[in-house]
Amino acid sequence: MTTQHEIQVSTQGRGTYDLTADVQSAVHDSGTRIGMCNVFIRHTSASLMLCENADPAVMQDLETFMSRIAPDGDPANTHTQEGPDDMPSHIRSVITHADLNIPVRDGRCDLGTWQGVYLWEHRHAPHERKVTVTITG
Amino acid sequence: MTTQHEIQVSTQGRGTYDLTADVQSAVHDSGTRIGMCNVFIRHTSASLMLCENADPAVMQDLETFMSRIAPDGDPANTHTQEGPDDMPSHIRSVITHADLNIPVRDGRCDLGTWQGVYLWEHRHAPHERKVTVTITG
Amino acid sequence: MTTQHEIQVSTQGRGTYDLTADVQSAVHDSGTRIGMCNVFIRHTSASLMLCENADPAVMQDLETFMSRIAPDGDPANTHTQEGPDDMPSHIRSVITHADLNIPVRDGRCDLGTWQGVYLWEHRHAPHERKVTVTITG
Repeated sequence: MTTQHEIQVSTQGRGTYDLTADVQSAVHDSGTRIGMCNVFIRHTSASLMLCENADPAVMQDLETFMSRIAPDGDPANTHTQEGPDDMPSHIRSVITHADLNIPVRDGRCDLGTWQGVYLWEHRHAPHERKVTVTITG
Repeated sequence: MTTQHEIQVSTQGRGTYDLTADVQSAVHDSGTRIGMCNVFIRHTSASLMLCENADPAVMQDLETFMSRIAPDGDPANTHTQEGPDDMPSHIRSVITHADLNIPVRDGRCDLGTWQGVYLWEHRHAPHERKVTVTITG
Repeated sequence: MTTQHEIQVSTQGRGTYDLTADVQSAVHDSGTRIGMCNVFIRHTSASLMLCENADPAVMQDLETFMSRIAPDGDPANTHTQEGPDDMPSHIRSVITHADLNIPVRDGRCDLGTWQGVYLWEHRHAPHERKVTVTITG
């Protein structure tokens, strides 16, 4: 039995957006007690991650890390049509995740206490992002 | 219902190889309308990624990025039996993906407009690579 | 048909721990012949990876790589409550994997010859880590 649900996220530009409640809600609505939940983002300049959900400083430090290894305006980049954050957004996406796969147990995503599901917008401009949640079980 | 299909890729050395059509074809042949598609590479010096599928400069810039953070011949590496690109290939594989998990909707992988499925060969020499496509639904 | 199994790992601090036999055993016990195996870690300062399983120097070089791009005590980090390895552990987790998804074929995870499943503890102190193995098929 497979259930699919779409989450639409209107981002305000670069930063992280907590999808945990939306994903848990999709799992609850599916009625699945045991199985798998796939979260998939249909973009190449925004990505997904499971990350510490308590201290906003973690997200700030992750931005600092990414800005150091894949800086905006890096003169090494040749793919620059959409601006200085175009290619860094693809790099950030490739080394994080387009899909997360979380076990469903007792009718919910069996996350650890400190794990949250986040969309990471890598572009500076606001974007409409589409995330598909697929529950099987 | 689970279907498995193997894709064999003869690489010409370091670079990316578009598997999107092969994966979509495996999903089509499986007859699955809704479910999940797992793409898995059975190697540790080549990997998979979902990436922008329109501008070849993206792939070139990704190579530049990887060459900067995990350069061939890095004197810090001790695992060098197979040459200067041996350990960098393992590093590149670990920070990208051995598996991709894509929702199947309406009988096809529900990729975004700009998403392609790529095998990334990290070794300079040509290799025979095996990729398993598993469709459940 | 979904089967879930939990693996408890008592780590001795930073380093890699081979889970391949535990995962294969869970697949065997499930009786699943064809399907998927998801391995999921319920933490944000330890992660999972598929990696070369023959030469311990690979793991040593991976540590060197991570220590270079996300060094302990990095003055750029502001999330430091739990010490100099706190934020680097989150970074290392985000750019590796919380979930691995491996095809099951002929009753076992269809890994390549050189692929092993590893838990990567990023904290220096010993920790109790929980890994969920979910087999569907």
